[in-house]
Amino acid sequence: MKIVELNEQTKAEVREKFLNRSPKQFGEQEAVVKQIIADVASRGDEALFSYTEKFDHAKLTKETIEVTEEETKEAYAAVDPSLVEVIRKSLVNIRSFHEKQKQNSWITTEEKGILLGQKVTPMEKAGVYVPGGKAAYPSSVLMNIVPAKVAGVDEVIMATPCGRDGKVNPSVLVAAKEAGADRVFKIGGAQAIAALAFGTESVPKVDKIVGPGNIYVALAKKAVFGNVSIDSIAGPSEILVLADETANPRYVAADLLSQAEHDEMASAVLVTTSRSLAEKVNEEIEGFLQVLSRKEIIRKSLEGYGCILVTDSRREAIDAANLFAPEHMEIVMKDAFEVMTKIRNAGAIFLGEYSSEPLGDYFAGPNHVLPTSGTARFFSPLSVEDFVKKSSIIHYSREALEEIHRDIEQFAKCEQLTAHANSIAVRFEEK
Amino acid sequence: MKIVELNEQTKAEVREKFLNRSPKQFGEQEAVVKQIIADVASRGDEALFSYTEKFDHAKLTKETIEVTEEETKEAYAAVDPSLVEVIRKSLVNIRSFHEKQKQNSWITTEEKGILLGQKVTPMEKAGVYVPGGKAAYPSSVLMNIVPAKVAGVDEVIMATPCGRDGKVNPSVLVAAKEAGADRVFKIGGAQAIAALAFGTESVPKVDKIVGPGNIYVALAKKAVFGNVSIDSIAGPSEILVLADETANPRYVAADLLSQAEHDEMASAVLVTTSRSLAEKVNEEIEGFLQVLSRKEIIRKSLEGYGCILVTDSRREAIDAANLFAPEHMEIVMKDAFEVMTKIRNAGAIFLGEYSSEPLGDYFAGPNHVLPTSGTARFFSPLSVEDFVKKSSIIHYSREALEEIHRDIEQFAKCEQLTAHANSIAVRFEEK
Repeated sequence: MKIVELNEQTKAEVREKFLNRSPKQFGEQEAVVKQIIADVASRGDEALFSYTEKFDHAKLTKETIEVTEEETKEAYAAVDPSLVEVIRKSLVNIRSFHEKQKQNSWITTEEKGILLGQKVTPMEKAGVYVPGGKAAYPSSVLMNIVPAKVAGVDEVIMATPCGRDGKVNPSVLVAAKEAGADRVFKIGGAQAIAALAFGTESVPKVDKIVGPGNIYVALAKKAVFGNVSIDSIAGPSEILVLADETANPRYVAADLLSQAEHDEMASAVLVTTSRSLAEKVNEEIEGFLQVLSRKEIIRKSLEGYGCILVTDSRREAIDAANLFAPEHMEIVMKDAFEVMTKIRNAGAIFLGEYSSEPLGDYFAGPNHVLPTSGTARFFSPLSVEDFVKKSSIIHYSREALEEIHRDIEQFAKCEQLTAHANSIAVRFEEK
Repeated sequence: MKIVELNEQTKAEVREKFLNRSPKQFGEQEAVVKQIIADVASRGDEALFSYTEKFDHAKLTKETIEVTEEETKEAYAAVDPSLVEVIRKSLVNIRSFHEKQKQNSWITTEEKGILLGQKVTPMEKAGVYVPGGKAAYPSSVLMNIVPAKVAGVDEVIMATPCGRDGKVNPSVLVAAKEAGADRVFKIGGAQAIAALAFGTESVPKVDKIVGPGNIYVALAKKAVFGNVSIDSIAGPSEILVLADETANPRYVAADLLSQAEHDEMASAVLVTTSRSLAEKVNEEIEGFLQVLSRKEIIRKSLEGYGCILVTDSRREAIDAANLFAPEHMEIVMKDAFEVMTKIRNAGAIFLGEYSSEPLGDYFAGPNHVLPTSGTARFFSPLSVEDFVKKSSIIHYSREALEEIHRDIEQFAKCEQLTAHANSIAVRFEEK
């Protein structure tokens, strides 16, 4: 990878590349997506079946659109039993971490008769989208379903496209069953998002849609936002390793490559105070590239969006890391935890040389659905909080309201909202 | 208002009206908004000044775009000092409630060297939009700024359009100062949203934009979602009162009218088990309509979107209330708190006959920015959580990773991600 000294210009250049990997204009696809959504919203199943035939080349009916128990059994028969074991072990950790995100409803009371609070209620139905295509990611199925189930959502409904044969990838089905999906529909693309957002004769309308997908799925999610809630729109994956001279270059190289292999748009950046480390990491990368199966993808992503930035000081390295706001950040430095206190923007922070990023993808327990493309400035990892909503609770006694009723009336009148003032005043009018 | 018996048909009809008050198609406005955003994003201040001149008829420069200390002083001189007092009293309650929403970062540890956690970090910059126009709502300024300040956001930046004279409404300015806005810019419309989302020479780029606005502002917020975070898109206001025969019809009528006065699209619905109450509420409404200053607006909103639904049972009434998922819900029934436990969907729940809705708008402390148009199914009141983001924290020791490294490698290989497997395996390879 290119090694560059960090200065204002190189920082801006690298950041620009890092943050602007996804194209921003989708006029043509947007029009297609709008049409599909309007059609499914108005014609329901009929439109859904027709788009599925057109795009997925599968003929669905009311009877075959949903995965049956029989099909789930077949899926178990088709996958390596040791994968089921690993999924179960991983689920223990994922559930345990997400259980700790649960929030309680709370109240506060004042003796004069004031009770205020916040009630936390799970959503009734959540939709989880799982992409089809060649690559199947059962780990992603777990990460999207578990927070909804832990939140207490009544019904978690998965949508994933089937093949021409009407079958769904067996490892995806097994992961869905293990994670606790309540229903699985064999639908994909913008038509699946529309079906979940508006409901059809076969597919129930949900309250929130989460999960990754291609550009049509992403645009459809953005289009239905407001009719339902959605998670953040996922861009290509990225890692930023923050390392000093104490880091093991072989490990750092392996970790950078683990993200670069995702796709050609993925980004891997090393920010280091040590030029010597930078050079050794580059050597290790060359070594690994001889043997790794996805070396073509890796080479392209490293060429396009990979970089090593060398800084004069630790403070500069940390500032650069915050500026990038990466999806995954590894800190392999002396006093890693102290450095972490200075990190404001990152989806997940991996500390120390045995906390390799794939540990988080598969096993540790925190969610691997993380904000990309610098959105860690304002978005958070997918969590139990994504599947609950809150209601404020307000109770005042006569005594408590009487004490302040003139203040409220004045405030309302100042905003010319006289019926607001009246609704308070009427409670204290003389009979 | 029309009194109808609740049955499947009337429920569906009333709900349809209630939820579909906002038009859904904005093709023309969308095109305008897109153009403005692209222009401000590429030309910065120049475009921002030119749109401000076009739409707000005010000539801004780098020197005059921001409200000065002097202008804030003038604003204080222009408002009734007793309003400042009320604002301060209200702020005590709003801050106190929002302080209770603050979440701690947390960790869990296992002795073999596993540390997992969730770090909570405030966003750096938040943008608060405040509409201009005839009506000024200082209460809304407080409700949008306080959660950001309590969250610990470094800089809260307010945008509000100025008049032709380059001045901002004084009560809005005073509210901004009291609530703790760090900077106030005299900009409005889609161009203000674009400036906050992308930054210009004068206006800093923010991480999140909140606050109500007209259709151009709402469409602009939706368009920049992903570049920044936004709050939910606000629709017209609404109230649903759930009442039995114990309710005071005069109070119920006054409370329904307090929402109906907001605008002609506002909705006020009473769901009650008592036909006698329904009739008395209607009589009281007629009485109030003789005297209230905004009676023209109220009549139109009641005609268009007001209704009284009479149900046979309390259970049916509660189910209907949940189906509507109203922004504001009042429960004026025997055992109001018990009824509240059955409410799943509502922005804010007001309990008992002295908890009139305007108490929440102005004074009690919980936020008055609430999900509208049935989105309480999945959206929450504006809160401190809107202005923080989370990062997962993952640390494993060598010992802890060694115990499970083969599991991770297997999972990664099953997903054909061999560089992921390699980044774990490399740490345990034989030297």
